[in-house]
Amino acid sequence: MHFLNFNDAMEIIGTFAFAVAGSFAAMEKGLDVFGLLVLAFVTSIGGGTIRDLLLGITPVSWLSDSRTISIILVAALLSLLFTKHLSQLSKFLKIFDALGLGFFTLVGMNKALQFDLSPGVCIALATITGCFGGVLRDVLINNIPLVFRKEIYASASIVGGTIYYFLQLQFAQEMAFVLSFIVIVLIRLLAIYYNWSLPGIYSKNKLSRED
Amino acid sequence: MHFLNFNDAMEIIGTFAFAVAGSFAAMEKGLDVFGLLVLAFVTSIGGGTIRDLLLGITPVSWLSDSRTISIILVAALLSLLFTKHLSQLSKFLKIFDALGLGFFTLVGMNKALQFDLSPGVCIALATITGCFGGVLRDVLINNIPLVFRKEIYASASIVGGTIYYFLQLQFAQEMAFVLSFIVIVLIRLLAIYYNWSLPGIYSKNKLSRED
Amino acid sequence: MHFLNFNDAMEIIGTFAFAVAGSFAAMEKGLDVFGLLVLAFVTSIGGGTIRDLLLGITPVSWLSDSRTISIILVAALLSLLFTKHLSQLSKFLKIFDALGLGFFTLVGMNKALQFDLSPGVCIALATITGCFGGVLRDVLINNIPLVFRKEIYASASIVGGTIYYFLQLQFAQEMAFVLSFIVIVLIRLLAIYYNWSLPGIYSKNKLSRED
Repeated sequence: MHFLNFNDAMEIIGTFAFAVAGSFAAMEKGLDVFGLLVLAFVTSIGGGTIRDLLLGITPVSWLSDSRTISIILVAALLSLLFTKHLSQLSKFLKIFDALGLGFFTLVGMNKALQFDLSPGVCIALATITGCFGGVLRDVLINNIPLVFRKEIYASASIVGGTIYYFLQLQFAQEMAFVLSFIVIVLIRLLAIYYNWSLPGIYSKNKLSRED
Repeated sequence: MHFLNFNDAMEIIGTFAFAVAGSFAAMEKGLDVFGLLVLAFVTSIGGGTIRDLLLGITPVSWLSDSRTISIILVAALLSLLFTKHLSQLSKFLKIFDALGLGFFTLVGMNKALQFDLSPGVCIALATITGCFGGVLRDVLINNIPLVFRKEIYASASIVGGTIYYFLQLQFAQEMAFVLSFIVIVLIRLLAIYYNWSLPGIYSKNKLSRED
Repeated sequence: MHFLNFNDAMEIIGTFAFAVAGSFAAMEKGLDVFGLLVLAFVTSIGGGTIRDLLLGITPVSWLSDSRTISIILVAALLSLLFTKHLSQLSKFLKIFDALGLGFFTLVGMNKALQFDLSPGVCIALATITGCFGGVLRDVLINNIPLVFRKEIYASASIVGGTIYYFLQLQFAQEMAFVLSFIVIVLIRLLAIYYNWSLPGIYSKNKLSRED
């Protein structure tokens, strides 16, 4: 019961944060209200949709999930009304986004685990669930996806998904979930705070010249 | 019988208009003949394909619809041959496109209605069917989707889809279809004639500063 | 037995070449290691994934194909380590890529043939399998897809797919496969060598003004 409430809270927070991130991106590009609505949806449910399509879970989950849809609509509306104040809230939104990343990654893993796939594929599907809503959003507004370029974002998802995969083999699912969730959120928040990012490909290559 | 003929005519006209719009976009970007063919197809069948995938209707409809494929091929060929004259025909093409938008929106709704989904999701799937072929086309040629930026286009689809949803609960499907179809086409044509567009997000936000 | 070995070799070579092409594109855009990994995967398995989704083959093939996944990971890693030397290997890579194009096109056709679809649709699905991994890659890094713009690439796939479709109606599948494979690879390599490309739409239109 307690665990269910935690799940509900994280799903609501994550959906909300992702939808706000989509609305923001729409505003930056000067889209109209319809564009904002689409970007809010795509950012929130895009990752899970790609996962569902790859696995053949259809009709895809959000089509019959009225709570998710309502949250996204509310998030889009609030973004429109409080544009001015949103920049002041950006710290909170980044924390919300980190919580969403952790939650969606592990939900994606749970779905993948039902399909008897190899560990690597499960981790990939978990990462897709957590990160590819943002990829779709960026493609729609003609940007190179942010997660391909900077910051520890997808990496947090990959590390946390990997830990969860192995923990859930040996421990109770709830404990594995909470521990891995903490890892993802922590990595992500530390990456924001200390401005961490993955080595760019070229600097990596400079290192490898010694090989 | 009469209704079937109306349906056939609208489907042919809509498919043709969307394929020509795709071909045009390919020409503007200086693509080659293969690029033109792909864009003609994607614009025409993209929206229905996304809807089918989300709902799990596979193999997706157009794979076994040789009429649609033939119409698209003819439209692409004619676009290639009559490039010079197409700009003179642009008024007719916009009217055709409006007819296509109305028809595909309502066809999308009819498919969604078979899946026992909430009204909002049905309307979303109808709008996706009508508008997302153009979204895919724009993404492929590296433009921010037109429907996110200007003109009353998706809005006509949303309004007409909503009206159809409620009309078909109470009236004969054919009557609901025709009435909603007229609404979509009328809104779209008036929007073109009077140059209507949705409020941009920033001007909207200016209004909301009084809140 | 002999044929199976040929298939294995071609699949490994093709997957490898496509993954390297994806890694290259990531490097040119200065993406990070995660972006490189995603592009290597998308380029290699994107075409087959779109085909599987359209046909409703789910979970899509690569999810349970650990060999493909391993090859892509190795290709991405080698691309990272040997960046400096890859430009010297570009001739080999283009030959590998041509082999991959031939192989994936015909594998796509074989899958489509199981669905009782029209010849045109089978050929389209074969071409999608061969070429749309590259389309997805280009969309993700914000380029207009290369195959829409220049070179005989998709055309080789279309011609070879068409030949295979008709050959396999009358001859043993293995013979049809090998002959069509040779045609695709030959067209592609000749196109590279002689710098062939499809007529651009505008020059085509100039020709059609005489009509």
